[in-house]
Amino acid sequence: MEPGPLTAGTVRPGGRTAKVRTAVLRAAQDELVERGFHRLTMEQVAGRAGIGKTTIYRRWGTRARLVTDLMGELAARSFPPPGTDAGSIEDVLLANARSVLAAINDPHFGATLQAVIAAATSDEGAAAALHAFYDRRITEWAKVVDAAVEGGELPPGTDGAELVRAVSAPLYYRLMVLRQPVDETTAARSAARALIAARAGAFVAC
Amino acid sequence: MEPGPLTAGTVRPGGRTAKVRTAVLRAAQDELVERGFHRLTMEQVAGRAGIGKTTIYRRWGTRARLVTDLMGELAARSFPPPGTDAGSIEDVLLANARSVLAAINDPHFGATLQAVIAAATSDEGAAAALHAFYDRRITEWAKVVDAAVEGGELPPGTDGAELVRAVSAPLYYRLMVLRQPVDETTAARSAARALIAARAGAFVAC
Repeated sequence: MEPGPLTAGTVRPGGRTAKVRTAVLRAAQDELVERGFHRLTMEQVAGRAGIGKTTIYRRWGTRARLVTDLMGELAARSFPPPGTDAGSIEDVLLANARSVLAAINDPHFGATLQAVIAAATSDEGAAAALHAFYDRRITEWAKVVDAAVEGGELPPGTDGAELVRAVSAPLYYRLMVLRQPVDETTAARSAARALIAARAGAFVAC
Repeated sequence: MEPGPLTAGTVRPGGRTAKVRTAVLRAAQDELVERGFHRLTMEQVAGRAGIGKTTIYRRWGTRARLVTDLMGELAARSFPPPGTDAGSIEDVLLANARSVLAAINDPHFGATLQAVIAAATSDEGAAAALHAFYDRRITEWAKVVDAAVEGGELPPGTDGAELVRAVSAPLYYRLMVLRQPVDETTAARSAARALIAARAGAFVAC
């Protein structure tokens, strides 16, 4: 087995609680990528992590919440949300597209993501995990876009979240549906096209 | 079990060959939706269709080709490609978005599609079936967009296939990643935004 990306100390420095979380998230990721969401159970994760099952239930409740936490942790570590000083709207949208690019091409996050997307077609828990993860990510990025709207870079009333979704869409479409490589060109074009439409007012909320 | 959409006579009128094809595609669809691509075997399809296994292997070769044929048949029946007299580029892109909308919300095609997309994350055959299906669909629609480019409605050099992909992307992204309803508003906005970017030259091939 390849070493996973979550090793002791990468999650948060500290005591026993942090170590438990690291061990559980790493076990969850390994189970997810090796066996898929459908066969992931709290029992298996507990066994693999060497942690009591009740501890895992108490902390995460459901496997959907466990997987949401895993996705959030992988993303926070490798693709942090933008700072408040993110530059022009052109820079922000390009940074957003590149963040999506890095996420889907990251071997750990990408494999986790594809497993969850596949499972979400037939499992409410996986769908809930996906939804919760993207809701948070899109909200984080939308704040930066909204600041650009307030600063007069885009027409008043532009829907930042919708613009962020438009930048992401072509990358996920290539990944999941067309099954074609997603590269820097894909990211740059997606950001540029969304920006043109946004400047023309195509993302002003009705 | 709900009656499948492929009943005798809907595929092509005619003799024994057409009847075999109808029976096999219907059985393949039922297996796919009930059991998933991973557990779909030529043997199971043969048994369900009441057709000899060798007939199925001779005609389709692999389950990937069988599933590609199934997707093509479902699409041709319910979401035919555009005619040559499809109207303005605005009409064409809206018709394209509505065709994608109808496809993903169609109970039979939609369920088949989601099963194949899920399987494609871990199976080369399913990925090949998806790729072959969308390659053909995008090419069909791109011809109509290319005609609009030649007619001067969009900047010279506009990449019709890329524009068609851009119209589809937000719909599939909502369906597969955000797990949110895809409706007429989603379709209309996607077509309108892609058109704005296309008119500004954002789809001119480099």
